[in-house]
Amino acid sequence: MIRAAIVGGTGYTGVELLRLLSRHPAVELVAITSRKEAGIPVATMFQNLRGHLDLAFSDPATAQLQTCDLVFFATPTGVAMRQVPELLASGVRVIDLAADFRLRDAALWTQWYGEPHACPELLGEAVYGLPEMNREQIRTARLVANPGCYPTAVQLGFLPLLEAGVVDAGQLIADAKSGVSGAGRKAETHSLFAEAADSFKAYGVPGHRHLPEIRQGLSMLRGSDVGLTFVPHLTPAIRGIHATLYARQTQVTDLQALYEERYRGEPFVDVMPVGSHPETRGVRGANTCRLAVHRPQGADMVVVLSVIDNLVKGAAGQAVQNMNIMFDLAETSGLEQVALLP
Amino acid sequence: MIRAAIVGGTGYTGVELLRLLSRHPAVELVAITSRKEAGIPVATMFQNLRGHLDLAFSDPATAQLQTCDLVFFATPTGVAMRQVPELLASGVRVIDLAADFRLRDAALWTQWYGEPHACPELLGEAVYGLPEMNREQIRTARLVANPGCYPTAVQLGFLPLLEAGVVDAGQLIADAKSGVSGAGRKAETHSLFAEAADSFKAYGVPGHRHLPEIRQGLSMLRGSDVGLTFVPHLTPAIRGIHATLYARQTQVTDLQALYEERYRGEPFVDVMPVGSHPETRGVRGANTCRLAVHRPQGADMVVVLSVIDNLVKGAAGQAVQNMNIMFDLAETSGLEQVALLP
Amino acid sequence: MIRAAIVGGTGYTGVELLRLLSRHPAVELVAITSRKEAGIPVATMFQNLRGHLDLAFSDPATAQLQTCDLVFFATPTGVAMRQVPELLASGVRVIDLAADFRLRDAALWTQWYGEPHACPELLGEAVYGLPEMNREQIRTARLVANPGCYPTAVQLGFLPLLEAGVVDAGQLIADAKSGVSGAGRKAETHSLFAEAADSFKAYGVPGHRHLPEIRQGLSMLRGSDVGLTFVPHLTPAIRGIHATLYARQTQVTDLQALYEERYRGEPFVDVMPVGSHPETRGVRGANTCRLAVHRPQGADMVVVLSVIDNLVKGAAGQAVQNMNIMFDLAETSGLEQVALLP
Amino acid sequence: MIRAAIVGGTGYTGVELLRLLSRHPAVELVAITSRKEAGIPVATMFQNLRGHLDLAFSDPATAQLQTCDLVFFATPTGVAMRQVPELLASGVRVIDLAADFRLRDAALWTQWYGEPHACPELLGEAVYGLPEMNREQIRTARLVANPGCYPTAVQLGFLPLLEAGVVDAGQLIADAKSGVSGAGRKAETHSLFAEAADSFKAYGVPGHRHLPEIRQGLSMLRGSDVGLTFVPHLTPAIRGIHATLYARQTQVTDLQALYEERYRGEPFVDVMPVGSHPETRGVRGANTCRLAVHRPQGADMVVVLSVIDNLVKGAAGQAVQNMNIMFDLAETSGLEQVALLP
Repeated sequence: MIRAAIVGGTGYTGVELLRLLSRHPAVELVAITSRKEAGIPVATMFQNLRGHLDLAFSDPATAQLQTCDLVFFATPTGVAMRQVPELLASGVRVIDLAADFRLRDAALWTQWYGEPHACPELLGEAVYGLPEMNREQIRTARLVANPGCYPTAVQLGFLPLLEAGVVDAGQLIADAKSGVSGAGRKAETHSLFAEAADSFKAYGVPGHRHLPEIRQGLSMLRGSDVGLTFVPHLTPAIRGIHATLYARQTQVTDLQALYEERYRGEPFVDVMPVGSHPETRGVRGANTCRLAVHRPQGADMVVVLSVIDNLVKGAAGQAVQNMNIMFDLAETSGLEQVALLP
Repeated sequence: MIRAAIVGGTGYTGVELLRLLSRHPAVELVAITSRKEAGIPVATMFQNLRGHLDLAFSDPATAQLQTCDLVFFATPTGVAMRQVPELLASGVRVIDLAADFRLRDAALWTQWYGEPHACPELLGEAVYGLPEMNREQIRTARLVANPGCYPTAVQLGFLPLLEAGVVDAGQLIADAKSGVSGAGRKAETHSLFAEAADSFKAYGVPGHRHLPEIRQGLSMLRGSDVGLTFVPHLTPAIRGIHATLYARQTQVTDLQALYEERYRGEPFVDVMPVGSHPETRGVRGANTCRLAVHRPQGADMVVVLSVIDNLVKGAAGQAVQNMNIMFDLAETSGLEQVALLP
Repeated sequence: MIRAAIVGGTGYTGVELLRLLSRHPAVELVAITSRKEAGIPVATMFQNLRGHLDLAFSDPATAQLQTCDLVFFATPTGVAMRQVPELLASGVRVIDLAADFRLRDAALWTQWYGEPHACPELLGEAVYGLPEMNREQIRTARLVANPGCYPTAVQLGFLPLLEAGVVDAGQLIADAKSGVSGAGRKAETHSLFAEAADSFKAYGVPGHRHLPEIRQGLSMLRGSDVGLTFVPHLTPAIRGIHATLYARQTQVTDLQALYEERYRGEPFVDVMPVGSHPETRGVRGANTCRLAVHRPQGADMVVVLSVIDNLVKGAAGQAVQNMNIMFDLAETSGLEQVALLP
Repeated sequence: MIRAAIVGGTGYTGVELLRLLSRHPAVELVAITSRKEAGIPVATMFQNLRGHLDLAFSDPATAQLQTCDLVFFATPTGVAMRQVPELLASGVRVIDLAADFRLRDAALWTQWYGEPHACPELLGEAVYGLPEMNREQIRTARLVANPGCYPTAVQLGFLPLLEAGVVDAGQLIADAKSGVSGAGRKAETHSLFAEAADSFKAYGVPGHRHLPEIRQGLSMLRGSDVGLTFVPHLTPAIRGIHATLYARQTQVTDLQALYEERYRGEPFVDVMPVGSHPETRGVRGANTCRLAVHRPQGADMVVVLSVIDNLVKGAAGQAVQNMNIMFDLAETSGLEQVALLP
């Protein structure tokens, strides 16, 4: 059994990790920390865990994380980078679900997150935890930077096109829509039901923190810099990301075959038949990224539709997938749930 | 392995049965019938089943249901009663998720469903499939009438009070709220998103078909007729029933202890601590009925809050629970999912 | 023109007052105060006001409220009672949309609101602003206590029954459901989209602050104390209250005629035909309370369905109605909007 | 007073026309037809009209439409083209809210709508009713083709760019999101609450009927053919369209000034300040198109955000605006409502 702990479990990625790990056959959950909620049973805060999990939140100071095999950070960005070095030194492996280790360039990180990075020396070692790109490196990683939700949907959508070099990588567009849980469980006016329900809006058009992460990943796939316009939107759904991706095709190729071949054997990427439209509810609660590729009206614009559950393949599920890879378990272990529809 | 089939699987109870049975360790799903959709893979209709279920809908005429161990009817009321006698005669056991066999009185059935019953002789044999009331009879039943969604939430909520005889059973009130999936997947104007979203209404106040079913069950619990006012409402949620139950207490008793003792050991009824308020999302996708008992302001009115997922404990999950009992499996087999929150 | 100001306009009752008053033919809106937002144009915070209202929030200290004919308080409870005496002394009339002046008994107020009342001497003078009960007193009032949202829906629903004395007033039940805007625009976890959407729950069952207000009103209508069980629920809609009311009929009477006669001529109470079910969306944005009266299955339990828009008839619209009465305008002035459906 | 009638008023554009026209100071609504609902008061079907409109649906055969000044067609596409010639011959002016007269090329119309056009000779005369493009022609038109919802949002968003010739018109992208009311009030499975709620998807990516309409309009603005990729999506909101538009800037210009100048004086187009994000709820129930222009990260990709209420500026409100122009009324007459927020 893997002895695992979660730091900062009161948000949505935290409760989702608990949902998945509490049923995982190879994991013993030894601690979940929250300074503010120490002593409170997690099932008091999240009714869905009643009967499934007996754990109470514990104070980070007393949680003895250094005795674990693996620690998940489900904290706001900026927390993990202060605690990870000590854990690694104790031989604990770490999966960070925040953005602390996603960018390889410390200066870029500082530009977007507004403070110096606390351990820039680890940025090179941290493995970007998108298994479909980096499976082999994840296997042996001490520190995995779990990708952001938008970056997961966008990168898996563009990946075959960029690897094959069949589109104009200088003019990529990612028009992405997220459910409101993507904003987290923090009490903020713009995430209130009466603000976000029955409405739709773009946000962060001038610049969103996931932009450099996506750009870094796409540039790696292509082998040189890409041009990307990224526009995130808020849709009145709880979970789900739908990325609609646009790229001008520059080389004749069978797009459907390209996608099917690239993702053949991938347990969590599902390429739909020609002409399909994936729905976010079709992956609600599941670790699947579902894709469809279109070239409307015979023009040269490729349109890729990519959906994930932002809390699963976009966060906690991908973290469990990374854990499975790191600890030589079946990659689908604990992740076989059928999505909840309707 | 239990060889099981589903008759009529294109509605929400059908897809939910598929979700549960496709992961059930002791079930081999051999057929799902739909005359209209024959030949279509179920995963084409329901994206969540992609990769989980390879079955296509088959024509009822060719489905060879008589070779199964168990047939689920997920059909509109009025279908099962025409096909069940022949299946029983072939030695097949049946769980009907519709209302064909829920009422024991054929005349009452006709009064509410507007046609003569096709096999009134089976009404006496059919076992009402609420395990918390009838577990022993279910074990050996050939034919189980799976309870309605409202009746499940209301009966489990009133059960301890009526068995103990501590309330005025002549003035019971059940104010129940259901998500829109309770209306089924039939295309009807009043179930459209633009009709049901961002609104709330009562319906069927003069008389709803679940009224006689609930009255029959509560009267059995009490041992004589009860007086019941039942008001169903539509709430803009996909899944979930919340029943708010009112009864005047006539005898001093520790209500919390009464509920905890009655349901101790029940795997799918969860009595919350004093002062709690269950949320429907806390049982989303799970087979749990979660209860809280209140006596506000020290008055003699008992208020019971009872929540279920109408498609799980209120339909498909309870059917699987009944199957587990009928076939001597662990009662929780295939039903251990943690509810999806948020 | 009435020179009017709003104190505390950054919440939902505030923006709703702005929507209504900005189009009111007899009102000049001279100030809207918010210490925190002073200087910010209201249309920056609320996009719907762009092009309709040029006002910016102003600091309460400089707003010169004493020069107004009328001041609305759209503040949290506890603010108005500290400022109203001085305004009244300056000859300004006041409509308080919070709970400061709704209870006539200062001790009861303290019991529910947890602090001493700042001007108990005004509790007797304040007129409870439910026009259908108190129209004549409102006409000349200096200080109007605008009713709460639940109290409006519940009292208008029970009023004809209690005035006529045809039900058992010792066992009244109000099962009420509110949209999430009822919780205000304050950033709180339980009001987040991802907490409140696609779910349903009761809250405050042991005791809700609207209980004493409703009980006071119903007791006045009846002429003596009533017994009331009040259970509020949260429904995933933005606006709307649906109160389902239960009372045992003790005297034969034509209920439909009773309601139609009592409310004949009332501009904002609409009694539906026999057998109807009002929807909250049918009053979305309108100042209407829509009622239907049932006596299901010929039993003696009366069921009244009462819907309002909590922000209009339950708050800002009723305040404008009160203003119209106080200033001898047509009672419907500025309140003729057709509800927005769908 | 304008004597106006509505043909086919049981859908959402019908009820929305009723909401607007019932309060319009210069319109006498003389008939609303529906063969199926003849005799039923419209307020029975749409509760929001209770107390505002006394009209019942009438049979088209007896409605005497030829005595009207103006007839609105709120029918499915394909109905108006069969009835309009006779009405025009009787001197009645017509506004068609369906697609019968939106395309100028009969062959193109047939290609997208699958049948021959019934009166191709009128396609040249019909005026495309987008006042911001064609105000002068609308003034004297006998027959106005009211634009589609997507086309309104997309064309108003691209208009200044194309008129000014500052972008690459060969690679335009319109990523559009619509609330579910855009699919109409017809009972169809994919529009059910339990199908569309809490989910998000693209649809019609290979080709949507609004594509040729938008392409025709944009090509007129530019003066030659444009290249356009149009991807519509369904968002779980009742009303609202949000179009996110992408175009590569080819010429230096002050985009904010370009938009502000082009729309200065337009009563129903609102250009927001630099850096803004319009919300669909900010125009809920209002006839406004609200725009924001971005050029993210200093790249050459222009991003325009354009929101409308699909039932108002995208249908009924724009029809009333066209009527106001045709009959020399103030263009804002009957359209001054403040949007409903929250």
